[in-house]
Amino acid sequence: MAKLLECALNFSDGRRRGVIDALAAAASDVRVLEVSSDPDHNRTVLVFVGPPDEAAAAAVHVSAEAVKRIDMNQHQGEHPRMGAVDVIPFVPLGQATMDDAIAAARWVGRRLGDDLGVPVFLYERAAARPERRNLADVRRGEYEGLAARLADLDWVPDFGPRQPHPTAGATAVGARIFLVAFNVNLCTSDVRIAKTIARAIRAKTGGLQNVKAMGVMLKERSLAQVSMNVVDPFHTPLYRVLEAVRMEAERYGIPVVGTEILGPIPLTLILESFRYYLQVEGFRDDQVLEATLWEAS
Amino acid sequence: MAKLLECALNFSDGRRRGVIDALAAAASDVRVLEVSSDPDHNRTVLVFVGPPDEAAAAAVHVSAEAVKRIDMNQHQGEHPRMGAVDVIPFVPLGQATMDDAIAAARWVGRRLGDDLGVPVFLYERAAARPERRNLADVRRGEYEGLAARLADLDWVPDFGPRQPHPTAGATAVGARIFLVAFNVNLCTSDVRIAKTIARAIRAKTGGLQNVKAMGVMLKERSLAQVSMNVVDPFHTPLYRVLEAVRMEAERYGIPVVGTEILGPIPLTLILESFRYYLQVEGFRDDQVLEATLWEAS
Repeated sequence: MAKLLECALNFSDGRRRGVIDALAAAASDVRVLEVSSDPDHNRTVLVFVGPPDEAAAAAVHVSAEAVKRIDMNQHQGEHPRMGAVDVIPFVPLGQATMDDAIAAARWVGRRLGDDLGVPVFLYERAAARPERRNLADVRRGEYEGLAARLADLDWVPDFGPRQPHPTAGATAVGARIFLVAFNVNLCTSDVRIAKTIARAIRAKTGGLQNVKAMGVMLKERSLAQVSMNVVDPFHTPLYRVLEAVRMEAERYGIPVVGTEILGPIPLTLILESFRYYLQVEGFRDDQVLEATLWEAS
Repeated sequence: MAKLLECALNFSDGRRRGVIDALAAAASDVRVLEVSSDPDHNRTVLVFVGPPDEAAAAAVHVSAEAVKRIDMNQHQGEHPRMGAVDVIPFVPLGQATMDDAIAAARWVGRRLGDDLGVPVFLYERAAARPERRNLADVRRGEYEGLAARLADLDWVPDFGPRQPHPTAGATAVGARIFLVAFNVNLCTSDVRIAKTIARAIRAKTGGLQNVKAMGVMLKERSLAQVSMNVVDPFHTPLYRVLEAVRMEAERYGIPVVGTEILGPIPLTLILESFRYYLQVEGFRDDQVLEATLWEAS
């Protein structure tokens, strides 16, 4: 696969169809993979993929539309947010590297700051300062607290003015590794077991590196679920995560009912699990017929 | 994936580099996936893929070159063969159907018969008579027995003259389902166990439909192997075959060391096993990022 960046741009409208369509249309130069709106959060995630320059340009186009159409002074929603264009993460895919994603984040940050007048904080791998790595820290105080935060010398934005855009607030632009939302459903209605397994499995409490996990209840199915983000599935493959959950569940005699993978995932992650379970020796990526044909086109 | 045919054309030279390169070059209008020559068999398998019309045209181009360059009167090799272009099977992939493959086989058969003067037998799914379905039956007597065979009223060729081409013999052209050569290596040097498992696993002796199997010895690794052709892996998926072998091996306390998949396989076969082992509910083909991007291009 050539150099590609995925961008999961989050903007602060999940209710007005006209706005959502207009913003998705602004990304029509690249491949839009998903437009997922949540009315309660009043927020939309627009996922698109393209060569680095095109993905970065599309992010600026969509942002310009969002700044024009969304007034944060009117915005209400459950999800934390600080701007009309709230978050723009770039994710390297194929031959693209993290440096490509960071370069795109910086370029987009400068365009938003200089051309659209929106203060920009660089976060995660693109962060210029360690205390801006974590998105939750960057967004603390949300839109309503922005003016005070930007007056703080520790929170001079990386690009753009030192005051909020009057209607669009501020934007966090970053770079991160591709993550997989991966859920494992257990044959029990006891959510405490899912919570206990989540603690056993996640990095923070002694489990697998690169795994964030919590136990939740799927009410409509009366099943407990270990709900996970695998934040670096290239180093912590899905089969290892599933088998670790299965192993922990076995001590309670509870089988795995099924799993869920949300959104698109790169072929290489599928092949990793395929090779493991089928025990295939020396299976090459180019043995996938479509991959070969796709590379040729 | 659009309508595509795979063609695994077998020609009777596995030794002369210049001939092999010239024949592979004759397929340059389509995507060549593999050129695999065996000097002992004195035979080459040239695998290419393309839209039905282009794949059929490429098969005729390659055949014309083979007829020009290969003299069967000089040919020696271990593998059964009856012509310079020995076998041309067409395999439907993507949106292509078996009817597309059969149509291509007939068109190519007519071209070889009428334009190149090579007698052609249609075999397998393209066969016009049931006794010509099995390739081994069609090829019985090989090149040396061709003149006698063609004089037999039961073996009037489907296309072309009733005598062998003076240097190129005859050709079998057919259509079949995509097959996977799938081998399972066992943690034993006792080939009798592999042979017993092969009998347990194969369709002919009461095992899994669509599986042909034999037990062989991998001398260089001192491992016994169940060597299989899964002749319809879309209905008998690889995970089912592997787990059936594993189950039979367990009665002897013998683990599976590893497996081998020879050549390219369609993504859908990989996803089938991925879904089974990872127990993914509702995983869609278009969740493979590259598949989505590939369809778009």
